[in-house]
Amino acid sequence: MNGRVVALSGGVGGAKLALGLSRVLPAGQFSVIANTGDDFRHLGLAVSPDIDTLIYTLAGLSDPVQGWGRRGETWSFMTALEAIGSETWFRLGDADLAMHVERTRRLAAGETLSVITDDIRRRLGIASRILPMTDDAVRTRVRTAAHGWLEFQDYFVRRRCEPAVQEITYFGADTARALPVALAALADPDLRAVIVCPSNPYLSIDPILAIPPYSNALIRCQAPIVAISPIIGGQAVKGPTAKMMAELGFTPSAREVALRYAELIDIFVVDEVDAGMTAPPGVKIVVAPTLMTTLEDRERLARTVLAAADQFAGRTP
Amino acid sequence: MNGRVVALSGGVGGAKLALGLSRVLPAGQFSVIANTGDDFRHLGLAVSPDIDTLIYTLAGLSDPVQGWGRRGETWSFMTALEAIGSETWFRLGDADLAMHVERTRRLAAGETLSVITDDIRRRLGIASRILPMTDDAVRTRVRTAAHGWLEFQDYFVRRRCEPAVQEITYFGADTARALPVALAALADPDLRAVIVCPSNPYLSIDPILAIPPYSNALIRCQAPIVAISPIIGGQAVKGPTAKMMAELGFTPSAREVALRYAELIDIFVVDEVDAGMTAPPGVKIVVAPTLMTTLEDRERLARTVLAAADQFAGRTP
Repeated sequence: MNGRVVALSGGVGGAKLALGLSRVLPAGQFSVIANTGDDFRHLGLAVSPDIDTLIYTLAGLSDPVQGWGRRGETWSFMTALEAIGSETWFRLGDADLAMHVERTRRLAAGETLSVITDDIRRRLGIASRILPMTDDAVRTRVRTAAHGWLEFQDYFVRRRCEPAVQEITYFGADTARALPVALAALADPDLRAVIVCPSNPYLSIDPILAIPPYSNALIRCQAPIVAISPIIGGQAVKGPTAKMMAELGFTPSAREVALRYAELIDIFVVDEVDAGMTAPPGVKIVVAPTLMTTLEDRERLARTVLAAADQFAGRTP
Repeated sequence: MNGRVVALSGGVGGAKLALGLSRVLPAGQFSVIANTGDDFRHLGLAVSPDIDTLIYTLAGLSDPVQGWGRRGETWSFMTALEAIGSETWFRLGDADLAMHVERTRRLAAGETLSVITDDIRRRLGIASRILPMTDDAVRTRVRTAAHGWLEFQDYFVRRRCEPAVQEITYFGADTARALPVALAALADPDLRAVIVCPSNPYLSIDPILAIPPYSNALIRCQAPIVAISPIIGGQAVKGPTAKMMAELGFTPSAREVALRYAELIDIFVVDEVDAGMTAPPGVKIVVAPTLMTTLEDRERLARTVLAAADQFAGRTP
């Protein structure tokens, strides 16, 4: 089966499926649009957590235990930084630092995040394209009862997602320019499928959709759009998705995620434990094992998702 | 014996004697004025090689083999940086990076190099003061036959001091402001001695002297001024001093260094192999073992230098 595939992804959870897709698709047929709402400046360095997780995961460099950061990382920098009294709540590994220092240097020299990202993924031997959702600054912020508005990493890392979230905003998204190559990929008449990865809807997918050209491109998109539930049996596989849904007044369930995406997607993939869920109108439910523990799990889910898209489009593999 | 001591120093060679002085003097009685002519921006980071060598040496953190950098350093950053195609000719260790990242961050926040340096040396438990010669930018540049004017680190590290040097300039030195606390230390009536460390005269000491208030302060200084020869038997202990002297038309010898400093200093300490050298007018020669291999060597030379100064001043220990 030919045709390009585009995924929308955040960090760890989404990157697992992105890795599966990159392995089962022909080289060069896969692009992933990465959330940059988590990006921030730390110690003066430009940090792009979801882009880096995607790069490390697709390059086979990621830490297999925690999912973010690098395998075999060393921590001399953090130890030395602590000794001279600097901030240490956001931990930067020694090898990981290369990404931030080089990105910061090239941004300061006037290059765009997308050009820098594309150059680095090529150097690391990644055949798939990793596309920052925008080269403009979009910043996710959460409003909390306890502390008011918080910058994303202050909420997510420093405060470990503990404050209850009342509202989320994607500062700058309404005027940010979508990446032209990403819009072109979504408008490609040969596009095989769009995959909304099992990322946190509020923190990873909504920042992309909050840039109007992406929502419009998905509404107009001719290819099947498949989302995979990040909620399995009412629990998030990782991260604060379920906790955040409850705080925002939603039942933490696969169905609530399906309802959130209903106007955009054609297919919603849920785990076997959620097989009984009622489909929102216009959304086809596909049931499959969605917990990705092994590399085989990632590839199998990727194949399932693509097969569902092909079947929906009336294509046979 | 009481009274403060001030040293002028570059990196590795000077830091050895500075360590000896810091160990034999009472806590808080020693200050070292550090050359900053080697400072540069690398990968967007503010690197101050001589300050860092002094900090690491006085904190007991320095690499005992190479003299610069940190003991037990790891190199994950450089390996990762190379993999993504960045510059690797100037090697930054993982723990060492903490210094550059923190310095860069604090400079960008409007703090001065001297305040940052003082804060860091305190946090690392260094009782002696490490004073950047200036908070303004002074940049050592060398003119070479082969490549014209070169930035210092381009000459020193990237080209390994290979191009023949025809001329040296300390860009910005004529208008740079000397550090007030350093000038105050040199004007202190209780000053016991000024020590010109066995650093490269052209690359480490002259940049300090090129800032007019320092030359004037040394001319007016009431305390004995003692220089230690970085040349032993016509050879430099480390680095390009002898090679550079020859290229600039001087005989590489302790005597040439003494002549260079003659108008400023009272005492010139030479190694035993140079015991026969003729003193320049107005300079007293002291002969002592000047090669510092062990920690005991550093402390012994420090005691010798201080005793010579005290004797010159007519003081008894």
